[in-house]
Amino acid sequence: MKIIVIGASGTLGQAVAENLSARHDVVRVGKSRGDHRVDLTRPESVQALFDATGRVDAIVATTGSLFFGPLAQMRAEDFEIGLQDKLLGQVRLALVGQHFLNDGGSITLTSGIVGSEPIRMGANAGSVNAALEGFVRSAAPELERGLRINVVSPTVVQESWPAYGDFFPGFEPVPAARVALAFQRSVEGPRSGHVYRVW
Amino acid sequence: MKIIVIGASGTLGQAVAENLSARHDVVRVGKSRGDHRVDLTRPESVQALFDATGRVDAIVATTGSLFFGPLAQMRAEDFEIGLQDKLLGQVRLALVGQHFLNDGGSITLTSGIVGSEPIRMGANAGSVNAALEGFVRSAAPELERGLRINVVSPTVVQESWPAYGDFFPGFEPVPAARVALAFQRSVEGPRSGHVYRVW
Ligand SMILES: NC(=O)c1ccc[n+]([C@@H]2O[C@H](COP(=O)([O-])OP(=O)(O)OC[C@H]3O[C@@H](n4cnc5c(N)ncnc54)[C@H](OP(=O)(O)O)[C@@H]3O)[C@@H](O)[C@H]2O)c1
Ligand SMILES: NC(=O)c1ccc[n+]([C@@H]2O[C@H](COP(=O)([O-])OP(=O)(O)OC[C@H]3O[C@@H](n4cnc5c(N)ncnc54)[C@H](OP(=O)(O)O)[C@@H]3O)[C@@H](O)[C@H]2O)c1
Repeated sequence: MKIIVIGASGTLGQAVAENLSARHDVVRVGKSRGDHRVDLTRPESVQALFDATGRVDAIVATTGSLFFGPLAQMRAEDFEIGLQDKLLGQVRLALVGQHFLNDGGSITLTSGIVGSEPIRMGANAGSVNAALEGFVRSAAPELERGLRINVVSPTVVQESWPAYGDFFPGFEPVPAARVALAFQRSVEGPRSGHVYRVW
Repeated sequence: MKIIVIGASGTLGQAVAENLSARHDVVRVGKSRGDHRVDLTRPESVQALFDATGRVDAIVATTGSLFFGPLAQMRAEDFEIGLQDKLLGQVRLALVGQHFLNDGGSITLTSGIVGSEPIRMGANAGSVNAALEGFVRSAAPELERGLRINVVSPTVVQESWPAYGDFFPGFEPVPAARVALAFQRSVEGPRSGHVYRVW
């Protein structure tokens, strides 16, 4: 399969690209690094990416910024960060990308455990992750030509624990390589509209 | 209690305002009609609303536009409609409103069954409704001074069935007055972070 991984230079994306490249032709895409570059928050950039890659068999996104901060100080502008970047960025990729997938191809997005298990300062993440899962659940039955769409919800990965661990008391980190298995299951398996929880 | 109902002129909001006004002082707010007017998509309008009403004991929102259309033709701009209006509009109301609630006060938002049960053309609704539920789940444990936040997820109401019924094959409509009971439970009951499903 020809698989495009957006966010391939990131903590999660590196592990996902490594897993998939053992069996597939992986195109690594980042915002500032990779075989191609894209900014998912810019419509013309997403279109240009697919014009450059041509048709693919699978699209994987391991991207997305969120706002973290106390609810009492949060403003709608802060909340917009996650809406525009992690949520609408991945939704835009799916909406445009559906037209560049070969029959039977798949889209795999990334949400996160905070969509299900609240943490302090996580209202934006909790909402955005749930929105991505709602999008995948709703979009899956409407996809044509045997296309599929899923989302992977990872807990904190071990590689990010030094940076984020303090915000996740009592959470159990998992290696990024283990999260990558869920992306493999989504890309190579039969399911659609599914949330692969890795926790 | 002094309760502000935003969307009080709408199908759902009328029933909610009628239920609550039997026992409380209800301030009816709409975009173009009511005791006060507000446009939840405009920050300065939300601030002006609370400057005009002063502190309240409960905030209820029965508002929010969504985009409905086939996934194959959906664009990110279409998807933004629900993000800016139903999602960020209600989130903005909650973020600003928390500071105008008396101790122990509550916020009750509105999602919808499509967040859990996909319908054709409903990818925007499915995502936005799930996002509101994720927001409430995440925001509830961070609220201070005994404040609470919940969301009501109604199925199609009987009063809207002539307009929307065709998009909901095999769904069972319920009277708006029955959905209003869930808003009453949220406002007068003890729970927080809860999704009241009415279906
Ligand atoms: N790390 C965790 O523990 C963890 C746990 C649960 C969920 N997640 C979720 O997993 C996703 C990736 O997390 P991560 O920790 O791997 O992030 P990361 O290390 O910061 O990597 C982010 C990747 O996305 C790319 N990127 C950033 N902004 C972009 C944009 N606007 N358009 C296109 N690409 C963009 C970056 O490219 P450049 O390198 O070129 O900038 C990079 O490849 C996020 O959604 C995060 O919320 C992470
Ligand atoms: N009706 C149903 O069967 C049903 C089922 C499930 C979920 N829902 C959800 O329930 C909510 C209300 O639905 P509805 O059918 O009752 O809607 P509706 O009859 O169209 O009423 C909408 C209400 O919101 C107000 N409004 C509209 N835009 C606004 C804005 N930008 N800022 C502030 N107020 C605004 C309107 O004020 P004006 O009258 O002044 O314009 C009106 O009071 C929506 O989120 C909908 O998705 C409805």
